Amino acid sequence: MDYIFSDRISALKPSAIREILKATSQSDVIPFAAGNPAPEAFPIDDVKKITADILQKDPITALQYGISEGYTPLRKTVAEYLKNRYGIGSENDDIIITSGAQQVIDLASKVLVNEGDVVISESPSFIGALNTFRSYNGRLAGVDVDSDGMNMEKLENVLKKEKNAKLIYTIPNFQNPAGVTMSWEKRKQLYALAKKYGVLILEDNPYGELRCKGEDIPCIKSIDTDGIVIYSGSFSKILSPGLRVAFTVAPKEIIAKMTVGKQASDVHTPMLNQMIVNEWMTHYDMTGHIEKIRRIYRKKLDLMCGLIDSELGDFVTYVKPEGGLFIWCKLPDSVDMLKFCSVAAENKVAVVPGVAFMMYPEDKTQCIRLNFSTPTDEGIVKGMKILGEVKKQF
Amino acid sequence: MDYIFSDRISALKPSAIREILKATSQSDVIPFAAGNPAPEAFPIDDVKKITADILQKDPITALQYGISEGYTPLRKTVAEYLKNRYGIGSENDDIIITSGAQQVIDLASKVLVNEGDVVISESPSFIGALNTFRSYNGRLAGVDVDSDGMNMEKLENVLKKEKNAKLIYTIPNFQNPAGVTMSWEKRKQLYALAKKYGVLILEDNPYGELRCKGEDIPCIKSIDTDGIVIYSGSFSKILSPGLRVAFTVAPKEIIAKMTVGKQASDVHTPMLNQMIVNEWMTHYDMTGHIEKIRRIYRKKLDLMCGLIDSELGDFVTYVKPEGGLFIWCKLPDSVDMLKFCSVAAENKVAVVPGVAFMMYPEDKTQCIRLNFSTPTDEGIVKGMKILGEVKKQF
Repeated sequence: MDYIFSDRISALKPSAIREILKATSQSDVIPFAAGNPAPEAFPIDDVKKITADILQKDPITALQYGISEGYTPLRKTVAEYLKNRYGIGSENDDIIITSGAQQVIDLASKVLVNEGDVVISESPSFIGALNTFRSYNGRLAGVDVDSDGMNMEKLENVLKKEKNAKLIYTIPNFQNPAGVTMSWEKRKQLYALAKKYGVLILEDNPYGELRCKGEDIPCIKSIDTDGIVIYSGSFSKILSPGLRVAFTVAPKEIIAKMTVGKQASDVHTPMLNQMIVNEWMTHYDMTGHIEKIRRIYRKKLDLMCGLIDSELGDFVTYVKPEGGLFIWCKLPDSVDMLKFCSVAAENKVAVVPGVAFMMYPEDKTQCIRLNFSTPTDEGIVKGMKILGEVKKQF
Repeated sequence: MDYIFSDRISALKPSAIREILKATSQSDVIPFAAGNPAPEAFPIDDVKKITADILQKDPITALQYGISEGYTPLRKTVAEYLKNRYGIGSENDDIIITSGAQQVIDLASKVLVNEGDVVISESPSFIGALNTFRSYNGRLAGVDVDSDGMNMEKLENVLKKEKNAKLIYTIPNFQNPAGVTMSWEKRKQLYALAKKYGVLILEDNPYGELRCKGEDIPCIKSIDTDGIVIYSGSFSKILSPGLRVAFTVAPKEIIAKMTVGKQASDVHTPMLNQMIVNEWMTHYDMTGHIEKIRRIYRKKLDLMCGLIDSELGDFVTYVKPEGGLFIWCKLPDSVDMLKFCSVAAENKVAVVPGVAFMMYPEDKTQCIRLNFSTPTDEGIVKGMKILGEVKKQF
């Protein structure tokens, strides 16, 4: 039988990154293409003890159906945490627990984006988000990224032009893939522009806790007196991505619709997983663990940047990130970027070609994305030396 | 700010059942409205031991990202099980692990149903499925259900009329809410009609293992030589709904698209949860546990049916189900069905008004749905006696 697929899925290619992830799951490939937490960044002993305790004390709750909004104690714990840590959350806001932060993007699209509506995003941006917007037949409008975040003049030009823009999608901290952090000044400008043009902001902050240097910059959501910001956070980078637990804080009306959307998507996020996160946040040393992760990643970031400078210093340009997982390196204009990635892969180093993060197939970039969290320190040294050799062919 | 929501979500009401579930989570309400497994049906000791073993032996895999298709060992285990148990799965089929069976319906809709396309379903049917179809702006076409399943003449009439029908959604075993099981004759007819009119079948079988009496009838998927059946199964009713692990077997091209859809929805189903299921299937007594559950539900089913006969025998009519979780009772035409449900709730017995399961707001029914798995045996006795008293007011 010839299957006729929906327009929305026909428009969608498999995620280049996840395909590469599969290809590079061979153990002899150095994984600069991934975005996985370092294995040593998992609080294994905590999870072991917590899980045993939950299944001892309250197994029925862990195994039974739950409500779509999420496990009530976890919703309260997260709300308090966000209030204290980021000054986020007003009495007009509510919270829903999601199956990873990807689902926040999915639910926000589901409840806000009609087919043909415009979603504005940093260009380049997280391919998973772009694909979700595409999966709702949303039309993407890209805004260039400067070293201090989205270009505000270009953003306003897009807002003037696109009358049915529904969402501005941004990753303000250690942006994926560009690695840059939006300045406080620009965050306030972005908020003012969104308010002026009546467009909602989806503030995606999966890497916020992974700051290695410099000072925290307040979240856009912390100045949201108008109820125009949907804030998304995740436990994937600080606890475990495999548990698939994240959350979103947004105006009550939007959370109510997202809850209806979640009922129709996966009913609820697994109970055991939500209980593990709640127990970890309330009775274990989350802050100490985050400090530990930051030390691990700071070391890896410095190691990789040092090697970029020594091995590729005359070849690539980049903005050193203050945190997160990724470094965005621009190759010389004379170099065939895709060819470089392909030769690197032949030499057992996986990197992501920058085109994967662009809005449209015709968009060009000379950049590649390097990840420093997944490889071991030895892998970083070896991989960068290989890229230093690969360079000589270009 | 006045939020403008998408058409698809505006068309969707919160699931009546889940709202009732929330309302009836008060411990003094007898839950005939739910669809939860009985607490005594969870293999708690198995899950405890399995989880401890996984977190001891392979914690990184359990906590790290996985691929969207699902945990490879579980995919193999499920494929073998389906082959042996139901004769399902050919070399043209593939399998994807999903976050509950609700996500199978979501992904099937995502990849197959354009806005305005028609989904044919038994009427009444599972409200969660109907809402998912609605969330893709699919147009529903209902087919009446006889005591041996969907009415085939009416199905063919709908197929003749609806030129852009994409899916026939059916729950062949112990249908939710009607409780009926589709005969083998009708399964073959359904398959032939789907083939004749070039429409795919979504065979949803969450209750298949919960047969209390009679003989298994082969799945429609078992005769799928043309690659037109998407089969959905779940661990929610035999292991745990809180873990959110289910699966679908379908032609490879469809699974490939569903995988892309899942990348954009929630990336992957939690790894720990998938590993628990795989370990349970391969190293524990799943068959013995299913036998145990059947005994529990057979007893509850008989208990409730006996009490319907004694307390409401002169008031309701129903087809006694051979398994599953639900009994569909028709009230006399003279009775205000919604009023009956409301008086029952006032008297602390929650039942679901049948309208929740209908295709359209204007569809009428005199039926209510009773669940016998969630209440305790004492709750069943007490609740049915209360309904017997409520009856006297009508």
